[in-house]
Amino acid sequence: MRSLIRINRNRNDLRRSTPQVLTSVKASPALGRQTRAFRSLDEGTYIMFIREMTEEECIAVVKSGRLARLACSKDDRPYVVPIHYAYAGRCLYSFSMPGRKIEWMRANPRVCVQLDAFSSAQQWKSVLLYGQYQELPETAQWHNERLHAWSLLQEHVNWWEPGGLKPGLQQTLGASPHVFYCIGVDEMTGRAAVAEDRG
Amino acid sequence: MRSLIRINRNRNDLRRSTPQVLTSVKASPALGRQTRAFRSLDEGTYIMFIREMTEEECIAVVKSGRLARLACSKDDRPYVVPIHYAYAGRCLYSFSMPGRKIEWMRANPRVCVQLDAFSSAQQWKSVLLYGQYQELPETAQWHNERLHAWSLLQEHVNWWEPGGLKPGLQQTLGASPHVFYCIGVDEMTGRAAVAEDRG
Repeated sequence: MRSLIRINRNRNDLRRSTPQVLTSVKASPALGRQTRAFRSLDEGTYIMFIREMTEEECIAVVKSGRLARLACSKDDRPYVVPIHYAYAGRCLYSFSMPGRKIEWMRANPRVCVQLDAFSSAQQWKSVLLYGQYQELPETAQWHNERLHAWSLLQEHVNWWEPGGLKPGLQQTLGASPHVFYCIGVDEMTGRAAVAEDRG
Repeated sequence: MRSLIRINRNRNDLRRSTPQVLTSVKASPALGRQTRAFRSLDEGTYIMFIREMTEEECIAVVKSGRLARLACSKDDRPYVVPIHYAYAGRCLYSFSMPGRKIEWMRANPRVCVQLDAFSSAQQWKSVLLYGQYQELPETAQWHNERLHAWSLLQEHVNWWEPGGLKPGLQQTLGASPHVFYCIGVDEMTGRAAVAEDRG
């Protein structure tokens, strides 16, 4: 499924419009989709397509990225923070200093992660992952998984990036305060926008 | 409060390190803060500071941005999506097609919004807003607020950007399907990272 929208290439026209202009909806049998058209005050128009992405496309975006936004919730209060991650085997691996995010995910492991790839305002992909928090503690059981996370993360994650440290935290000498975790992905969806010039 | 971290300028050194290197924590009375130091395998080091931002700094980031990530939750299931917004009077104004985000915020108006300003991997600001969803319906009561939202948003928001349309949605001829809303900000916090060269 995809939607499309035809807009004026000249943005000044858009600024002169009002929300009511959005009501000029018309069917476009030629394209087999409905078309939402702005009044054309000049000749130039292009058409925006928004379409759902396949899972393969979603995975490609996830693999090529490293920055995401992770949302968790507790007592129906949402919380969202940027994280850096590495992806492998339907898991997002990351680490964090202890804090609200870790506490909340321990209490409620359901998370939602958003990633995007913006080529331009007219060309972007946005992916949502739904999954479960799994901590990778420093125990024998999780030793290999923790090493795996570390080997993936050290490829491109820097420790001073979001999540790596926090203001004024009391450090414990001789103990790494970082929590390693993975998000097991249950479901992923995505939308892509592409502009098509119609002269 | 702020934390700082001293790291090797040469990233290859970092790659040779292991999580245990993070444990080399030492107090830095000269700086009045604790310092987390990586083993220096060459001469070049710089220090990363992470500090809490003032509310004025947070507002400056919010005002200068237009893209944010909005998290909401329902039955303790989190959901996060990109939105475009305009900020005025401690409110984020935005609009959306009907869908999960709108349904969930109608059911539970508590939201968390994350914005950032990345100058580089070593220099970034991240701001969190906690607030409440308020719909701006097409009624006499909300007429002026809705016009206000529109006048702010038309300055720089394009209708084909995230939230503006969605795949395959059935349009109703003659009726704008867009939902205008504002997020009344209750609280905002932020963190800034800055690198300082120590030769």
